[in-house]
Amino acid sequence: MLKTPRTKLRRVPQRGLHDRATLDALLDEALIGHVAFVTHDGHPAVIPTLIARDGDDLLIHGSSASRTVRALRAGAEACVEVTHVDGIVLARSAFHHSMNYRSAILYGTLQPAADKARALEVFTEKLVPGRWDHVRWPNAKELKATEVLSLPLTEGSAKVRTGPPGEEEEDYALDAWAGVIPITTRRGEPIPDPQLRSGIPVPDHVRSLTAR
Amino acid sequence: MLKTPRTKLRRVPQRGLHDRATLDALLDEALIGHVAFVTHDGHPAVIPTLIARDGDDLLIHGSSASRTVRALRAGAEACVEVTHVDGIVLARSAFHHSMNYRSAILYGTLQPAADKARALEVFTEKLVPGRWDHVRWPNAKELKATEVLSLPLTEGSAKVRTGPPGEEEEDYALDAWAGVIPITTRRGEPIPDPQLRSGIPVPDHVRSLTAR
Repeated sequence: MLKTPRTKLRRVPQRGLHDRATLDALLDEALIGHVAFVTHDGHPAVIPTLIARDGDDLLIHGSSASRTVRALRAGAEACVEVTHVDGIVLARSAFHHSMNYRSAILYGTLQPAADKARALEVFTEKLVPGRWDHVRWPNAKELKATEVLSLPLTEGSAKVRTGPPGEEEEDYALDAWAGVIPITTRRGEPIPDPQLRSGIPVPDHVRSLTAR
Repeated sequence: MLKTPRTKLRRVPQRGLHDRATLDALLDEALIGHVAFVTHDGHPAVIPTLIARDGDDLLIHGSSASRTVRALRAGAEACVEVTHVDGIVLARSAFHHSMNYRSAILYGTLQPAADKARALEVFTEKLVPGRWDHVRWPNAKELKATEVLSLPLTEGSAKVRTGPPGEEEEDYALDAWAGVIPITTRRGEPIPDPQLRSGIPVPDHVRSLTAR
């Protein structure tokens, strides 16, 4: 990843990482990215949206008619942020309470994806691996209604905090319990569509996702 | 909540909500908000940060030296987004795959919080209800190192998707399984600090948080 003045981590720089393996894992685990841009009249905007990494690019998609898609397609610079919250860090002092997290921030300008149909396969497989071969593929009207935009993974950084609290030396003698409450995300039991035709069992590609 | 042209939901407006009860519940459940602003030289920026609602204000905090805190304190307009992912929506068509979610977007300019010490109590209690009375409170040096900024909840909107997939009428006849895979966030068993003094059990305020 390209380091630039704005991706250099000034606050707690020892938590910073610029390697692609860390970044890729972090993006691949995330369903949602937070896409910020500056509106045509100079205001900040940020929206949550499904992300999918495709090799050296991060893909986002949306309705061709959406304001965000139109602004980004017109060349508005983007800042995309992804965060996983892994735990609450309880210190003996209020000041040193913290969170364990893994986050990434990317910068760049998005371009329409070269192969929109393939990109929609990437999104579907991101949501549910193995899904693409079980569903009706997008028709011409649906492809036209969807815009897919691509951000090259060239400028950005990741930041990770793990482990127990850091305290002032004298606070270790206090009576307060200290440690970490881990936070995890789980996929639960599949809920069938009330309109599901009878005789269609939960398929393996859905079952295996919910076992995670 | 004040409706303005930019908080009017243009895409899928039936998912939009402007009532404070919905917004408050959504903010109170979230640990992290995504704070976007325009840098002094016109670039978009977005960072994840702990949020805590205090009545009619949303509080964020950070090091007094951080670039984000300084930009916001200097009057940069902010857009704050909060999102909960509640499920993956599996449709019979690739096009109608979706996510169930609850999100909010707020706009405004932040001000330094009137009572910084009280605000830090609000943050500590947000992370772990009941924690404040068990920890060492911030001293003068720590208070000085921390900036707390406050955003009035005056301009914004919430957007919620729930329930099964919506399909094209003819797709209900397809063989594909359809439905929702729910996603939940869980707090796990507390992990004691390796430097915890012996004889300090997990207190009730920690135990009750992890039962959620």
